[in-house]
Amino acid sequence: MPDYPPSVDRLIRALKLLPSVGARSAERMALHLLKRPAPEGREIAQAITAALDTVRPCPRCGFFSEDALCHICADPKRDPALIAVVQEASDILVIERSHAFRGHYHVLGGVLSPLDGVGPDQLRITPLVERARSGTVQEIIIALGTDVRSETTRIYLSNELKPFPLRISQLATGISAGGPLEFADPASLACALQDRKPLG
Amino acid sequence: MPDYPPSVDRLIRALKLLPSVGARSAERMALHLLKRPAPEGREIAQAITAALDTVRPCPRCGFFSEDALCHICADPKRDPALIAVVQEASDILVIERSHAFRGHYHVLGGVLSPLDGVGPDQLRITPLVERARSGTVQEIIIALGTDVRSETTRIYLSNELKPFPLRISQLATGISAGGPLEFADPASLACALQDRKPLG
Repeated sequence: MPDYPPSVDRLIRALKLLPSVGARSAERMALHLLKRPAPEGREIAQAITAALDTVRPCPRCGFFSEDALCHICADPKRDPALIAVVQEASDILVIERSHAFRGHYHVLGGVLSPLDGVGPDQLRITPLVERARSGTVQEIIIALGTDVRSETTRIYLSNELKPFPLRISQLATGISAGGPLEFADPASLACALQDRKPLG
Repeated sequence: MPDYPPSVDRLIRALKLLPSVGARSAERMALHLLKRPAPEGREIAQAITAALDTVRPCPRCGFFSEDALCHICADPKRDPALIAVVQEASDILVIERSHAFRGHYHVLGGVLSPLDGVGPDQLRITPLVERARSGTVQEIIIALGTDVRSETTRIYLSNELKPFPLRISQLATGISAGGPLEFADPASLACALQDRKPLG
């Protein structure tokens, strides 16, 4: 049966490797990239290659870096005594956008999930313990999500970090800031009630 | 404000050039491609470059081709007296999958849409008229969609092709094959009633 030429088929298969891209989307993307003139396809190919050639995980925190250390670890204005542990590098941007944190980070690279074959050795836990051992760190905020695997990981991490003389904390749960109470979900509201703060 | 390194930002911007990919999807795709080891990103970059370097529009029909002619135009078993005119190269695959057509194709590259700046000169209409003039062609099936711009294009094409001694036809409209009547939309059912066929 006639089909696309081999190089178009290969392009469609390659684009299907992208997350949430199925056969139909990959075909649509491939045809779009092949429309002449095709500067977009060249730019995407070059951007992927440039990023893969240039970007490495920061050896200290695990964030993306183009230099010896990432720009957060290299920033002398940030507080090295405070570390926020996050699941993925992208979570660092989420926290940075809050403008409420001026410490350093530590990317775990995932959360514990034994059924998926993710144990402590698959995560960057040993480097975190090394950082805790170094003596610089005074507080570690475990800034993971609130799902079951994140909870498990938080418990595991606090056990691993218990031997060191530092504070271990986690993010507060509660109702969202800046919204009416009617939009609060019951679980967050329950947390907000339990962790209520004295006024005045 | 700290952000991703420049090469990661460039990759996110580049991936946003893909159709139906917004800022969030592009960021998710970029982070996925940068996870080490990264064979997927390399494969996508190489597949795009290979396809752009290898694939050209077939000079006769406009389909994708890696050779002098596409594999459909080059196939001696296909009937050169019959041409199906389609809007996009991807429509050729749609027709091929029906296994009901053994003629040649002609890709217009769009449909007339004056408000979007698409007039006859932006489509491959002159090459179609040349093919009609050549004397080989006995029938041209205008295999466009059934929206207003496709209808306009069909009327324009049949006027352009009228001078030549060949049949001009269009796809039948009617109810879908292989489904119960209750799922037929009213417009298709109206066409099916009007174009009803005598039995026996």
